[in-house]
Amino acid sequence: MTFSTKLEAAWSRTGSMLMVGLDPDITRFPAELQHRPHAIFEFCREIVDATAAYACGIKPQIAYFASQAAEEQLQALCDYVREQYPWLPIVLDSKRGDIGSTASHYAAEAFDRYKADAVTVNPYMGFDSVEPYLDWQDRGVIVLCRTSNAGGSDLQFLKMEDGTPLYLHVADLVANKWNRNGQCSLVVGATFTDEVAAVRERVGDMPLLVPGIGAQGEILLQRWLRA
Amino acid sequence: MTFSTKLEAAWSRTGSMLMVGLDPDITRFPAELQHRPHAIFEFCREIVDATAAYACGIKPQIAYFASQAAEEQLQALCDYVREQYPWLPIVLDSKRGDIGSTASHYAAEAFDRYKADAVTVNPYMGFDSVEPYLDWQDRGVIVLCRTSNAGGSDLQFLKMEDGTPLYLHVADLVANKWNRNGQCSLVVGATFTDEVAAVRERVGDMPLLVPGIGAQGEILLQRWLRA
Repeated sequence: MTFSTKLEAAWSRTGSMLMVGLDPDITRFPAELQHRPHAIFEFCREIVDATAAYACGIKPQIAYFASQAAEEQLQALCDYVREQYPWLPIVLDSKRGDIGSTASHYAAEAFDRYKADAVTVNPYMGFDSVEPYLDWQDRGVIVLCRTSNAGGSDLQFLKMEDGTPLYLHVADLVANKWNRNGQCSLVVGATFTDEVAAVRERVGDMPLLVPGIGAQGEILLQRWLRA
Repeated sequence: MTFSTKLEAAWSRTGSMLMVGLDPDITRFPAELQHRPHAIFEFCREIVDATAAYACGIKPQIAYFASQAAEEQLQALCDYVREQYPWLPIVLDSKRGDIGSTASHYAAEAFDRYKADAVTVNPYMGFDSVEPYLDWQDRGVIVLCRTSNAGGSDLQFLKMEDGTPLYLHVADLVANKWNRNGQCSLVVGATFTDEVAAVRERVGDMPLLVPGIGAQGEILLQRWLRA
């Protein structure tokens, strides 16, 4: 089963296109939880149990584990999701970006160590920084395109010589060149709704990961999720 | 002591501008070393001991540790360098890039957990993805500009409406806006020598991290390292 088929099965099963992001900031945990030995794992497990029936995927953000030297808790969390909700895709949100040989090791981190179904990656270093992930043909590769943060415009909204903004150039590159095995998706922030529509127009029915609906306070209209 | 002053002191001490990259691929280790419990740490420690007197810094690439679940060995390595060679700057090569709240956790990973003197970051998500690192004013923030890999051209060499290639736009952004505390540097690959010169022309005497001299087989002319 590939990431795409697993994702489509999850959509059918729960009737939901909600990807549940896990950004467990331990400094904001309840005091009684904060000092327990596996606090991050426990916090995330409760969210997974409460939301799995209404979700099409779980997206842990690795930075919150890395800052706490809690990689083992992330491994335990991924194991837990796979065992309890084997139909639920796991997207490792790590936004890695590095050259080929190094990217192979990042791909092994995501797909072998954590056994994630998909991973987020950064396109700034170009195709050979994404290619090693594509060798894992049953996994998803979700490329940053138009991110949801304010600073996203600093580079992504720059216009090229032909008037195309950089983020649409990335969308074209991924859709027309990089997605040779049909395993790619794009990150397009819900905070920039016109841009979601512009990307959708170019990439057919490629799945879009659309962050920025929660803490960033934007409403997402479902029509943008699928063509 | 800031990263800049530590780097300058290391240049003076060893008379060297060589940053020693540690990309410890365990599959390429000698067989007798491969299966030892702290093989990656031992391999790296030997390189550090052999090169410290000829180097101005040590740059471990975190992906090679992450793929092997060897974060503790990376911590031990950083501890070892700080204890044995306290004058030698440690650059954590992680090329992180994410939005503000998440970037704060990546900054804590680099500067608190590993106590690195500097970290490499990716500019694709813009200023607010770099800002949290700048709050650590005694540390260095080394922004990807023109990377040494072939695919680097896919985005970085695209020309903007005014004819400026993207990588030079990034150089301008960092030099004129992001470097408000004087702690930024740029990554400019030695494999694109004309571009190293073009960046140097724009950023004054900002330190440049110039990879691609080893495995990527290019020769670096020292005049490009400093204006």
